[in-house]
Amino acid sequence: MTVTAPRGFAASGIACGIKESGETDLALIATAACKPVPAAAVFTTNKAAAAPVRVSKAHLEATGGMSTAVVLNSGNANAATGMPGREHAWRTAQMVGHALGADPHQVLVCSTGLIGIPLPFPKIESGIASLVEGLGGAEEDGHRAARAIMTTDTRPKEIVVEGAGFTVGGMAKGAAMLEPSMATMLAVLTTDAECSPEELSAALVDAVESSFNQMVVDGSTSTNDTVIVLAGGASGTRATRADLAEPLRHACDRLAYQMAADAEGGTKVARITVTGAASIEDARRGARQVASSLLVKCSLHGEDPYWGRIVSELGSAGIAFDIDRVAVSYGGVVVCAGGVAHSHDGQAVAAHLAGHDLEIVADLGIGSATGSMYATDISHAYIDENVRTS
Amino acid sequence: MTVTAPRGFAASGIACGIKESGETDLALIATAACKPVPAAAVFTTNKAAAAPVRVSKAHLEATGGMSTAVVLNSGNANAATGMPGREHAWRTAQMVGHALGADPHQVLVCSTGLIGIPLPFPKIESGIASLVEGLGGAEEDGHRAARAIMTTDTRPKEIVVEGAGFTVGGMAKGAAMLEPSMATMLAVLTTDAECSPEELSAALVDAVESSFNQMVVDGSTSTNDTVIVLAGGASGTRATRADLAEPLRHACDRLAYQMAADAEGGTKVARITVTGAASIEDARRGARQVASSLLVKCSLHGEDPYWGRIVSELGSAGIAFDIDRVAVSYGGVVVCAGGVAHSHDGQAVAAHLAGHDLEIVADLGIGSATGSMYATDISHAYIDENVRTS
Repeated sequence: MTVTAPRGFAASGIACGIKESGETDLALIATAACKPVPAAAVFTTNKAAAAPVRVSKAHLEATGGMSTAVVLNSGNANAATGMPGREHAWRTAQMVGHALGADPHQVLVCSTGLIGIPLPFPKIESGIASLVEGLGGAEEDGHRAARAIMTTDTRPKEIVVEGAGFTVGGMAKGAAMLEPSMATMLAVLTTDAECSPEELSAALVDAVESSFNQMVVDGSTSTNDTVIVLAGGASGTRATRADLAEPLRHACDRLAYQMAADAEGGTKVARITVTGAASIEDARRGARQVASSLLVKCSLHGEDPYWGRIVSELGSAGIAFDIDRVAVSYGGVVVCAGGVAHSHDGQAVAAHLAGHDLEIVADLGIGSATGSMYATDISHAYIDENVRTS
Repeated sequence: MTVTAPRGFAASGIACGIKESGETDLALIATAACKPVPAAAVFTTNKAAAAPVRVSKAHLEATGGMSTAVVLNSGNANAATGMPGREHAWRTAQMVGHALGADPHQVLVCSTGLIGIPLPFPKIESGIASLVEGLGGAEEDGHRAARAIMTTDTRPKEIVVEGAGFTVGGMAKGAAMLEPSMATMLAVLTTDAECSPEELSAALVDAVESSFNQMVVDGSTSTNDTVIVLAGGASGTRATRADLAEPLRHACDRLAYQMAADAEGGTKVARITVTGAASIEDARRGARQVASSLLVKCSLHGEDPYWGRIVSELGSAGIAFDIDRVAVSYGGVVVCAGGVAHSHDGQAVAAHLAGHDLEIVADLGIGSATGSMYATDISHAYIDENVRTS
């Protein structure tokens, strides 16, 4: 159930001292043979992108999409750290490359944690030897890596999906700032399928668009978001972009769901579906606007079927909209039709809202396009978790 | 200090039974002579605009911007109420017009409260006679009207501003859904200046843009937002658009501040200023993104100078941005310069953040444009107030 499930990968996770708690904070995923394999990534679009994002992007360009390893630290984002931060990210790659006998450009770097605090590089430096020594291909090795990238996550996020003759494994972290274009989330996927860097990249972009990019916790786009996939080829199964697409999408979707379910202070996950839209863009934009609404999140938390807030958000989403045609349902029970209250079984709606996984559908009644977005509710715990960083 | 301060206006506020609590819920502002005067309004851009918004818009168009009165109810938004809702809004105007001896098209209508619940029209109907009887030009009459439009507001919002030879008075309500293009907020302004409907309208649009539209509580744009101004001319002072602009802007700004200060669950008001931007649009967009950020609001509540979140929001605001040039200050104390942490007097920052009115400035270091936005913090009370509508 983790990144070591596909053949040909090893993983490791240790505590190097970045986290004062002593918990693990440094992870490594590498090809078992320490040889470069096709790799692809999707990065944050934030213009304040962190040092490791800049370095990893440059490395993938330099190698034409061939990587040997990914090194990740938690506890510090290495963002808004200027030139020294970029040097730290580069030196991290260099040291890992050296230890693995690989070109530093074949090493990708990820960081997650607080912004604006210099990376305690000596701690990372001192941990790399034991991090590399700890590499192993067992399931527990993958788990160790998945746990070492956690920040405010309460549990590791891991997945395995079987493709046609190959396997996809993955791990992720992220519990806040989850929104558009991902969020402070990191994900590393591995597969033993055989493919080109180009096919892999195209399949990953599609998978991210219909998974991580369709989840909203708090509307913030982080400085560090990164999704990386390595394709080792050990299965001997040649996979095209089309072959890779569905297993990758499925793995990303399940990791996205795990993140939403573990959202800071979240107690519910609602899938907001907008249907009957004039276009897919309209449907997704409407679903995103509803899923981002603080008032809707409050209603979800209170198990209150206040569809008026949903209609109001759709009306201000900048999409084709006619209030007289809108219908809204909770768990399949229609509560609003033709833009006005619709008499319904209140107990059925209450029972649905009392659950953890909610389904809310808004039918715009205009066209035939559909889009969905995962939303979380908001509770006191979200605020408590985020009022102070220290 | 209210709408009756300018000469020639009368106001009234009564309880007609919409609010189960028995508090006042129906207000009226009318010209003392019951004659139409130049009027202008700015309405919500939400496509799910409530019935009273549609009716008032049509009435202003029909009269070419001449109105005699504004009738407002709280406790029910008359939004997402379909055809019956539109008829109720129209009949409310008709009854008030009849009682005042005015054409119904000269009466504007506003509602605020819950969405999707049929307006209890018989209650409004039964209250109109005593509402009109209660009209008076004293300060207390204005206060009564200001109190009758409150929903979750904890106090009425009123203002008087002196222009050159004329007076502007105003009242407003609003404590949530305050954002872009205003939010569930209603405001009625009165002035005894003499001007044309066109001059009045142009001055109001400018005033709203640089006041109500620069305030963010929760990012939701309501179905009912309306700002109305009536210019009676009783001062005998002829005022141009330019003469009206500053007093109107000042009145709107003070009402906006009062709303932000009374935001649901808010304990602080921060003015977020983005300076050194490539354009005013960039500056305002950046300030809005920071002010809307749930994570920034949490930091404000926790009195935590976590500037990393501010930089991250600016980086994802879709504006010209270079992390290496950014500086951030709290209460004038620079905490970030050149995109990295800047050593500073921590006690001075802590003392500033402990106050109620905060000043946060982000200098992008790119151009010379500046823009500001009022932001509120978020606390448990915001969630408590919004989890359930009943």
